[in-house]
Amino acid sequence: MLNIGVIGAGRIGKIHAESIQKYVNNACVYAIADPFIDTSREWAENLGVKNIYKDYTEILKDPKIDAVVIASSTDTHSKISIEAINAGKHIFCEKPIDHDVEKIKKVISALEGKKIKYQVGFNRRFDKEFAAVKEAIKEGKIGNLHMLKITSRDPEAPPVSYVKISGGIFLDMTIHDFDMVRYLSGSDVTEVYATGAALVNSEIAKAGDIDTALISLKLSSGAFAVIDNSREAKYGYDQRAEAFGSQGMAQSFNVNSSSLVISSGSGIVSNKPLYFFLERYKQAYIEEMQQFVNAVINNTDTPVNVFDGLAPVLIGLACKLSLERNAPVKISEIKEKFNLK
Amino acid sequence: MLNIGVIGAGRIGKIHAESIQKYVNNACVYAIADPFIDTSREWAENLGVKNIYKDYTEILKDPKIDAVVIASSTDTHSKISIEAINAGKHIFCEKPIDHDVEKIKKVISALEGKKIKYQVGFNRRFDKEFAAVKEAIKEGKIGNLHMLKITSRDPEAPPVSYVKISGGIFLDMTIHDFDMVRYLSGSDVTEVYATGAALVNSEIAKAGDIDTALISLKLSSGAFAVIDNSREAKYGYDQRAEAFGSQGMAQSFNVNSSSLVISSGSGIVSNKPLYFFLERYKQAYIEEMQQFVNAVINNTDTPVNVFDGLAPVLIGLACKLSLERNAPVKISEIKEKFNLK
Amino acid sequence: MLNIGVIGAGRIGKIHAESIQKYVNNACVYAIADPFIDTSREWAENLGVKNIYKDYTEILKDPKIDAVVIASSTDTHSKISIEAINAGKHIFCEKPIDHDVEKIKKVISALEGKKIKYQVGFNRRFDKEFAAVKEAIKEGKIGNLHMLKITSRDPEAPPVSYVKISGGIFLDMTIHDFDMVRYLSGSDVTEVYATGAALVNSEIAKAGDIDTALISLKLSSGAFAVIDNSREAKYGYDQRAEAFGSQGMAQSFNVNSSSLVISSGSGIVSNKPLYFFLERYKQAYIEEMQQFVNAVINNTDTPVNVFDGLAPVLIGLACKLSLERNAPVKISEIKEKFNLK
Amino acid sequence: MLNIGVIGAGRIGKIHAESIQKYVNNACVYAIADPFIDTSREWAENLGVKNIYKDYTEILKDPKIDAVVIASSTDTHSKISIEAINAGKHIFCEKPIDHDVEKIKKVISALEGKKIKYQVGFNRRFDKEFAAVKEAIKEGKIGNLHMLKITSRDPEAPPVSYVKISGGIFLDMTIHDFDMVRYLSGSDVTEVYATGAALVNSEIAKAGDIDTALISLKLSSGAFAVIDNSREAKYGYDQRAEAFGSQGMAQSFNVNSSSLVISSGSGIVSNKPLYFFLERYKQAYIEEMQQFVNAVINNTDTPVNVFDGLAPVLIGLACKLSLERNAPVKISEIKEKFNLK
Repeated sequence: MLNIGVIGAGRIGKIHAESIQKYVNNACVYAIADPFIDTSREWAENLGVKNIYKDYTEILKDPKIDAVVIASSTDTHSKISIEAINAGKHIFCEKPIDHDVEKIKKVISALEGKKIKYQVGFNRRFDKEFAAVKEAIKEGKIGNLHMLKITSRDPEAPPVSYVKISGGIFLDMTIHDFDMVRYLSGSDVTEVYATGAALVNSEIAKAGDIDTALISLKLSSGAFAVIDNSREAKYGYDQRAEAFGSQGMAQSFNVNSSSLVISSGSGIVSNKPLYFFLERYKQAYIEEMQQFVNAVINNTDTPVNVFDGLAPVLIGLACKLSLERNAPVKISEIKEKFNLK
Repeated sequence: MLNIGVIGAGRIGKIHAESIQKYVNNACVYAIADPFIDTSREWAENLGVKNIYKDYTEILKDPKIDAVVIASSTDTHSKISIEAINAGKHIFCEKPIDHDVEKIKKVISALEGKKIKYQVGFNRRFDKEFAAVKEAIKEGKIGNLHMLKITSRDPEAPPVSYVKISGGIFLDMTIHDFDMVRYLSGSDVTEVYATGAALVNSEIAKAGDIDTALISLKLSSGAFAVIDNSREAKYGYDQRAEAFGSQGMAQSFNVNSSSLVISSGSGIVSNKPLYFFLERYKQAYIEEMQQFVNAVINNTDTPVNVFDGLAPVLIGLACKLSLERNAPVKISEIKEKFNLK
Repeated sequence: MLNIGVIGAGRIGKIHAESIQKYVNNACVYAIADPFIDTSREWAENLGVKNIYKDYTEILKDPKIDAVVIASSTDTHSKISIEAINAGKHIFCEKPIDHDVEKIKKVISALEGKKIKYQVGFNRRFDKEFAAVKEAIKEGKIGNLHMLKITSRDPEAPPVSYVKISGGIFLDMTIHDFDMVRYLSGSDVTEVYATGAALVNSEIAKAGDIDTALISLKLSSGAFAVIDNSREAKYGYDQRAEAFGSQGMAQSFNVNSSSLVISSGSGIVSNKPLYFFLERYKQAYIEEMQQFVNAVINNTDTPVNVFDGLAPVLIGLACKLSLERNAPVKISEIKEKFNLK
Repeated sequence: MLNIGVIGAGRIGKIHAESIQKYVNNACVYAIADPFIDTSREWAENLGVKNIYKDYTEILKDPKIDAVVIASSTDTHSKISIEAINAGKHIFCEKPIDHDVEKIKKVISALEGKKIKYQVGFNRRFDKEFAAVKEAIKEGKIGNLHMLKITSRDPEAPPVSYVKISGGIFLDMTIHDFDMVRYLSGSDVTEVYATGAALVNSEIAKAGDIDTALISLKLSSGAFAVIDNSREAKYGYDQRAEAFGSQGMAQSFNVNSSSLVISSGSGIVSNKPLYFFLERYKQAYIEEMQQFVNAVINNTDTPVNVFDGLAPVLIGLACKLSLERNAPVKISEIKEKFNLK
């Protein structure tokens, strides 16, 4: 039984705590910490969490705790990661590790030579729809991959106030899709060309960001990928993948609330995709946490390691630059900038 | 080049004439006859038909005509069939040959010993959706057939005035489905149990008929079939088949005007099935006529012969009796009544 | 927090215990009893169950226990139900209460005048696919119901040894579909006509049962229903509903393991339906238990009461008789036999 | 009745001649010309064509001929167009007018001030699947267009010998997709970024071409489009569109030979898309010709005029340049090169 300390009791911290406590085998939430824990104290008690703190260092200090889930605000992820590494805790860190590559590099350095398991929270890899596409590719069902297409659209644009601090669409939203491209293709991204505009909400343009993006990617395997994003799809959360190869095509589609079809004078109507990401990816959140626990217990590699956490940030930065320049940008250019090989 | 005389220039006569003239190979409409031909004369001339008559016997008398299409009113089908047989013409006769079994028997007798090709117009056999199910069954894709399900619903109930002279739902509408059961299963129907009511329009009940029917059928192969009918489906013409067997299932679905799917705040909306039978079965009407022409030219069996024209009438009469008695009825009982073996 | 005692730790007892312990709010498994509990003791301890007995009467005696789940062998359901009623426990009883109507009547008598909540385990009502059809009907999306079609096929025939003690296909398998007809239509069944044969396995015929069934049903609302069953569908567990009415149609379809579609030289291939009933109906098992707990806590009616447990048994007996007689049978005939009104 | 002369009796010339003769109203094939007509003479006679020539100038000289269909080899399209314009014939010209912009400009000049109807053979606009998407956009069903996605994959790569003379994938294959982007969006393309490689067949790379392409496009409306191409999809001809906008999404899908679905132990299998372009677009070829005839008869604009024939060539040339430079290319750059405004 792995004792886990959850750092951060906001929306995503709660999701992870509930997954661990209710659904994940061989692990429990031993402690939880959040500066604003008072507003969540009752929730934590009902969940059966015994140790409830304001200060997360209580968790790092407790030798009974084997692993931590870092679900605090993004700007603290790298700092707490390093502290937890130094405290000898295994770490599940919410994505992104940071938007600042230098800070991610420090986490990588801190991990060197340590027997710490580190997993980054790219939950979509654990969604059974995308996992089925991955499996089909791995099993050779489509032959060699030639083209990967990711459609990723949110149901509703965030408030402009959020957009301003989000790091921009590529690091905030598309980062998941960059990870998906790497996961499905089993390849690294070598070059990107990004276009886009604020077509949903002109206020987003004023905030210096875009809400509609189209990104061409070249992969190290020689294959190509394309991602299209929108911050707002009126029909709900649109999350699809299409992999095309020498022997055929594998596709995954949206998940609806039920298979109900109503035929009437006004048409043949199916349900809309699940609207909310926590609903669509509920099982994926459980599955990623179970695999983290398994990796710690069995001393195996985590499925999304610290380098998998770094790569999409580099791709995102390349996209930012590509959009500015209106030109393709090589990932190697970004790497050189940060003395990465 | 087969010279065909079309008898009857109503809606279905026109369909057949246009099929032959425009789409069917190795045949042409040599003549057309209808007592009310004056209202259709321009149409016939535009179609390139040279010989236009009021009296169909002109067609029977003309030695240049090889075959006739009988598309006159139902009550004249058997009489004209016999006259055409005696005139040595091959015959494509619209369904049904007659509602009166004695009259069909006379057609059968007239055909005996003659080298006349006789085909009955069960057009749905030639629809590519149903034909694909037939093919799957024949090729053994579902193993031995266990259960056949036919859904057959009209888009709109006919006027009560028509219902009164229609011969009742079983002989007017379900007759196609009886033929479909025989066609898909390659088996004869041995027993039926029919239930139903006038749920669409209570005036239909007053006219002594029903508009909603559910029929269980036993087949000579040991398999079962079920047909459900409605005179009115608000979403359009509903024509589906499902064949279930020892190795799996084959299904055919409705045909929509296009594959368009619109996703919006109000749902995921597909097109409705094609509404009108002439639209849904346009290609089937062409294909049945082509196969008739081929059978005549190649001196092969017609795909729907006079006995295939008789069988659904017997099943329909058994259903009428079953509904009256609220009890299953064997087809053999109907056959005995008419001294058929 | 409702303290529940689970009686029976076989396959279905375990399902319910796990649902309560892991997923159901406001309830816990306070005790579990099974004569063969030794083989399941470790499982129970891991689940966190404190009180583990061989003898279920320990559960009935314990005043701390509010409610029981009866998941023992079918022939003990009615006896234990009555004992639990007398012990003042609320009851969730697995389906069927019994195959013997007299025994069900005794349970009904025992409940009279008591403030006991009694729920029967017709789990499929709580499946979101079927529930969506129910909802559509209730909301008037299809107008007045005219025709209800239930397809219910098991992935694999049970061993003949099981068939012999199963009570026959109608009471063992179709009983769920009878309940589904009542649930979706909101109507009672008034008459049935059942046909069928052993087409899957001829040994089943020797055991006096059938494995393929087709049942026509008349409903008190004037609508019709049809159920088709097979004990073996090679493509997996086939569980579909279609409701047709004056304004349109509502359909629910099978649930696949994912939305993956693979297109290759050999066709466009989707996943098969979930094969195993525990997988397909996992959420439904949780949901029915949650609703039972809610009914107890809120003192509201259970969603499937003792009369809902009786009705499908009567319909099943009518079907047995119908198959023997090859004639429709009224439910009222069965009721009269058992002095039920 | 419009008298049409068909110039060229190769595969596509025959398609057009048959469409006109069999399906198009108010027009007939008055004459046909091809240098190799002898191999097609019997076909032409059977089609009822009276005037059969080797030399197409016989057609241009005949005052009884109102319009010509230019279906000769691509390199003769512009020359014959100009001759036909000078002969006063209305023109349906197969795509592309030419790969050489200067030659297209000469056709444009020749048309100036003439009352000649000129239509270019972009047949896919007349396919009911794509037309349904267009209609949905025009009717405002998806609000303002934000993103257009065209998937266009051929079933089988052409021989390398053909690739060498094809003008390259962008002018040979993608040209249809460029037209589709313009048609569906109702917008002009302003900038492109093209990537690609020879992933299907490395011989194609040696011939200086690619077989897999991914193209980002910016539209004058501010929307974006993406096209993905492959010369070889093992599952057949893949022709889909997806339009996403402020209010939702409209999609069209592939057309299968039938709706047949076979469920068995090996999966749920649907039919593959129609394999051959002449099969998939048969109705579109008829429809485009009918609309040409209508435009001539009613003296209205043709649905695909000479400028619509020019635009995709410019986009294709921009893509070629983009691929060479690995940089986005503005259409205005290409236009300037050719002194076009």
